[in-house]
Amino acid sequence: MSLNFCFIGAGNLATHLSKALQNKGFNIVQVYSRTEKSAKELAGFLSVKYTTSANEIYKNADIYFVALKDSAVDEVLSQINFGNKLIVHCSGSLPLSILENYCENTGVFYPLQTFSKSREVDFSEIPIFIESNSIKNGELLVNLAREISSSVSVLNSENRKMLHISAVFACNFVNHFYTIAAEILKSKNIPFEVLKPLIIETAKKVQDISPGKAQTGPAVRFDENIINSHLQALNNFGEYRQLYMSVAKSIFEHYKK
Amino acid sequence: MSLNFCFIGAGNLATHLSKALQNKGFNIVQVYSRTEKSAKELAGFLSVKYTTSANEIYKNADIYFVALKDSAVDEVLSQINFGNKLIVHCSGSLPLSILENYCENTGVFYPLQTFSKSREVDFSEIPIFIESNSIKNGELLVNLAREISSSVSVLNSENRKMLHISAVFACNFVNHFYTIAAEILKSKNIPFEVLKPLIIETAKKVQDISPGKAQTGPAVRFDENIINSHLQALNNFGEYRQLYMSVAKSIFEHYKK
Repeated sequence: MSLNFCFIGAGNLATHLSKALQNKGFNIVQVYSRTEKSAKELAGFLSVKYTTSANEIYKNADIYFVALKDSAVDEVLSQINFGNKLIVHCSGSLPLSILENYCENTGVFYPLQTFSKSREVDFSEIPIFIESNSIKNGELLVNLAREISSSVSVLNSENRKMLHISAVFACNFVNHFYTIAAEILKSKNIPFEVLKPLIIETAKKVQDISPGKAQTGPAVRFDENIINSHLQALNNFGEYRQLYMSVAKSIFEHYKK
Repeated sequence: MSLNFCFIGAGNLATHLSKALQNKGFNIVQVYSRTEKSAKELAGFLSVKYTTSANEIYKNADIYFVALKDSAVDEVLSQINFGNKLIVHCSGSLPLSILENYCENTGVFYPLQTFSKSREVDFSEIPIFIESNSIKNGELLVNLAREISSSVSVLNSENRKMLHISAVFACNFVNHFYTIAAEILKSKNIPFEVLKPLIIETAKKVQDISPGKAQTGPAVRFDENIINSHLQALNNFGEYRQLYMSVAKSIFEHYKK
C-alpha cells in the first residue's frame, strides 16, 4: 500500500500511531496541531512539515487521521474542507457519525492502549478497532491496521464506547488507585518501590486467570475486622476512605452472588 | 542457618512461603490447618506430616509461622502452648501485639504479594517486612527473610497496616476493576483478551514513571462530554455507574490541585 497520511492532532496517540505507520513505510505528509509546540515536536520526530492553521492543511493526503481531544473535534474539523478524502478519528467514545458533517468517506481507527510520549510501545500487540461508512473504506482501514498490529477487529460505535468505558476502569481508574496507594505510603515515608512487584503480578495474573478468579484480600474474604480497621486508619484520607468503602462493598456484593 | 519450621495455616500464602523456605534448604516439620483438604495438600507438596488438631502440633519447631485468616488467629492460637518458641504471623493488618497472649518470643514476617495456589511466584523479588519483640528475634527474622528475598525491611505495626491498605488499593481494588471491565465487555460479547495489553502496559508504566504522571484518559483531561456519555451508557450497571462517578471525581479533584 502506498498511502499519504495527514495527522490532525499531535498528542500522545498521534505521536505513537504516526511513528508506527512511518516505520512501516507509510508517508506522513503533514502534522497539524493547534499548539505550535506539539505540532513542531511531532513534525520533528517524523521529519515532516507542520502547520497550526487549519486552512493550510494539505489537500493531497489519502487519509486524514483525527487524533484530537474529543471536545476539540468539531471546532477543528469545521474549518477544513476534506473533499472526498477519507477521514478517520481515533476516539474510543465518539461515534462514527460525528464525521458525517465534514466528509463523505469516514472511518474510525481506535488503538486500545495508554500512550505517553516518553514511553515506547510495541504497536504490533495493540488491538485496533475499525469502523467505517462503507465496505471499501472498511477494507482499506482493516488492511492498514494489519500492517502495524496483529489484533484488528471491526466494532460499531456503541460497542466501542463500552470498550472504552472498560478501558477507563482497567487503565485510568487502576492508575488512580496506584496514585492513591503511593500517597498512602508517602504519609508513612514508605517508598512506592515496594508495591511494584505486587502491581506487576496483579496485572500478569489476569493474563492467565480470569479476574473474577484472581481476586484475593480482605474484601473477598468478607473479613470485616480488617475492613473496619482499614477504614479507621483512613480517617485522615476522607475521600479515599469513601472510595475504600464503595469498592470493598462492590467486591463483597460481587462475590456474594 | 539450620532451623525447623511449623506452618499454622495452609492457604495461598502458607503454600508459597513454605515452598520458598524449603527450596532454600530449611526444614518444614509439620503443617497444621483446620481444613483437612488444605493441610493434606500442602503437606503433600512439602512431603511432611500434617495435622488438623491444634493439640497435635509438634513442640520441636524453632519458628511457628501463623498464616491464617486474621479472624481465625485468636481461636487457633488459644489452643496451642508455644512455650518460649518464636511465633510469627504473616498478616499485613494484625499488630505484633496480638501474639503477646500466646508467647514470649514474637514476630511478624509479611511478604507483600498476591498469592494464588495455581501460580508460581519468584519469592526473591517479593518485599518482606519484619517486626519483632526483641533485637535478637528481629535479627533472626531479617536474616531468614534475606535467604529468600532481596528486599527485606523492618516496619512497625502501624506502618505495616498503611502498607497493607495501599496494597488493597493497588491489588485487590485494581483486580476488581479488571473484573468490572470484563463484565462490561461481556455485555457486548467483546473478549476480555483485548484489554490484556492495556492492563500490562498500565502496570509497567508505573515501574518507570510515578502513577501521578502516568495518568491519561477523560477524567484527567476534564472531558465532561465523554464522562457524561459514559455515565449514560452505564445506566444498566447501577453500582458500576456509581463507582465510575466516584473515581472520576477523585481523579478530577486530584489533578485540579
